[in-house]
Amino acid sequence: MRVGVIGGGQLARMMVPAAVELGIDIAVLGEGPDAAARIAVTDIGAATDAEAVLGFAREADVVTFDHEHVPQAVLAALVEAGVAVRPGPGALAHAQDKLVLRRRMAELGVPQPVWAEVADEVELDAFLVTTGGRAVVKTPRGGYDGKGVRVVGSGAEASDWLADGPLLAEELVDFRRELAQQVARRPSGEIVAWPLVETVQGGGVCREVIAPAPRSAGRIADIACDIAMTVAEALDVTGVLAVELFETVDQRILVNELAMRPHNSGHWTIDGSTTSQFEQHLRAVLDLPLGATGCHAPWSVMVNVLGGPADGDLDSRVPALLAEDPTVKLHLYGKTPRPGRKIGHVTVTGDDLDDLVFRARAAAARLDGTT
Amino acid sequence: MRVGVIGGGQLARMMVPAAVELGIDIAVLGEGPDAAARIAVTDIGAATDAEAVLGFAREADVVTFDHEHVPQAVLAALVEAGVAVRPGPGALAHAQDKLVLRRRMAELGVPQPVWAEVADEVELDAFLVTTGGRAVVKTPRGGYDGKGVRVVGSGAEASDWLADGPLLAEELVDFRRELAQQVARRPSGEIVAWPLVETVQGGGVCREVIAPAPRSAGRIADIACDIAMTVAEALDVTGVLAVELFETVDQRILVNELAMRPHNSGHWTIDGSTTSQFEQHLRAVLDLPLGATGCHAPWSVMVNVLGGPADGDLDSRVPALLAEDPTVKLHLYGKTPRPGRKIGHVTVTGDDLDDLVFRARAAAARLDGTT
Repeated sequence: MRVGVIGGGQLARMMVPAAVELGIDIAVLGEGPDAAARIAVTDIGAATDAEAVLGFAREADVVTFDHEHVPQAVLAALVEAGVAVRPGPGALAHAQDKLVLRRRMAELGVPQPVWAEVADEVELDAFLVTTGGRAVVKTPRGGYDGKGVRVVGSGAEASDWLADGPLLAEELVDFRRELAQQVARRPSGEIVAWPLVETVQGGGVCREVIAPAPRSAGRIADIACDIAMTVAEALDVTGVLAVELFETVDQRILVNELAMRPHNSGHWTIDGSTTSQFEQHLRAVLDLPLGATGCHAPWSVMVNVLGGPADGDLDSRVPALLAEDPTVKLHLYGKTPRPGRKIGHVTVTGDDLDDLVFRARAAAARLDGTT
Repeated sequence: MRVGVIGGGQLARMMVPAAVELGIDIAVLGEGPDAAARIAVTDIGAATDAEAVLGFAREADVVTFDHEHVPQAVLAALVEAGVAVRPGPGALAHAQDKLVLRRRMAELGVPQPVWAEVADEVELDAFLVTTGGRAVVKTPRGGYDGKGVRVVGSGAEASDWLADGPLLAEELVDFRRELAQQVARRPSGEIVAWPLVETVQGGGVCREVIAPAPRSAGRIADIACDIAMTVAEALDVTGVLAVELFETVDQRILVNELAMRPHNSGHWTIDGSTTSQFEQHLRAVLDLPLGATGCHAPWSVMVNVLGGPADGDLDSRVPALLAEDPTVKLHLYGKTPRPGRKIGHVTVTGDDLDDLVFRARAAAARLDGTT
């Protein structure tokens, strides 16, 4: 069995251990020889280059993705050529275009923020009247980690983006916290869910994940799981699906965004769950029976390593981190430190949540250069 | 950080996930393009080819091993060239030559079977007189998985092997079971131990491992740990050391053999321990602080997959295995099935040992083709 992954970032990199363990050959179409997933890079080319992608895909039994930036035209060419593309283009469209997502969620009756498609300043001003004078505008395509998102108080404040086409406008959700629900679904229909998790964002970027989400057992977890399963089935998602959610101050659960690939909110599963999201994604796209999603410990805490030390010398920081806490699981992505860049994460698991949060933050801070 | 591994078998393969996770670049000198560790193979050459090994080693910060078959002359050339070789040649000699091992264990006062070096039939006959007329003879070098081991009742029965040089003769140990104690040690001296495990052999090959070894808490575990730590320190072992032990019917613990690399008796640690033997080996040879060796669950059971299905079609057996038991962790080595060949293993972890043994055997049998 051979899986081809388009894109050579850390998500492709973290699929490698799972592939090696399951005896699956993995090949990666990377952006360059220094891609995070370089150990598995067999071809170098852009995900937008139909010829490169097609040539790469022909060698694989199934093609899947490190990111959602493969254009629909390239995806269509793959399907046309008989390649098994998972998730398929129809599903991926919802992770590529936030307007497509909002329309579909509305059709499905899935709870989401109040939203509108706005084509010009007049439409945006009209929307602002309904949302108390302030709203979030998002470019439908290409945004991630806080990019392509802006809070505005008037149509004029989005004029530059509106020049490029319609935007998604959303109410400013008064949320208590952000959650994420991950499920995996295989072509034959089997679907499994991990526990709902809490994600802590900062500057538009995921900073920490606590699994399971504290104080969520029962109603909140049930709603989140229901939403994710509904979406996975309705959109015919294959592979791992992460549904980013808002928990509002009045305890509603609203869909924020979707990711149809392994996702930062699921990195804890590598060390905290019987089946990691990376193993599960490979099993799902290969239509193999899915693995158990139980936890090794009552709590898992994952903290991202962002940026790295100011002097760029990551290796020299590792010994102190490992010496300080022999139970911390360190994951580095083979990327050059740069301000704000996700270069790794740490996970700790155990019984005492406060202690775990403290320890995971301390470990990550060793690499951020903040200690 | 870049680790070079000499030999491309399943042990090198299983180092890859640990290296990828820790952000360590791993390169393998493989026997051919189809080596189990092919995803990390950068050079192809024999471990006995000094030129190939030296050329390969120059690119690495540290060189370690998939097996113990690198000749001392090649190891000496590496050290001469300034390569960090871990474990070092002096330590490795004890895993390469059973006579060297026996002499050293005797010097250290470590308990072991009654033994003698026998150069000819007369000496072997004399030894047999002291051991009740039967003994095990072993070729000092090159034996593994039951090869190079024979039970004899007379010197004449070993005449073919004696023609090639002296043999190790040992009493037939009346053992209740076999155990293995793994420790890891780094150059700066830190040393950690995993729990003692029970290994079940068949036909000279490891079949199953139960961790921790049942009914071993207290005295037996203490003795085993003491022996392994004594040996690791006295022999200046760096990396992972596995000490294979006999527990005799009169409850003595005797050293059988050593392995100075990740070992089949430690495969359970991938899924059952906070730090796998593969991650620990990399940390140890890079002189990084060692990881915690606690267990995820009270019991872990590992069963080897030997041979594979008669029709050679391993892939077609995988879905039923995964469907039957979503908690089983499957590990395949990317090797072509052949009678008796170790092509993978399965591990299950949990609370109920009898249930785990049943489930692990059932899963492995799915791939052996025996169900």
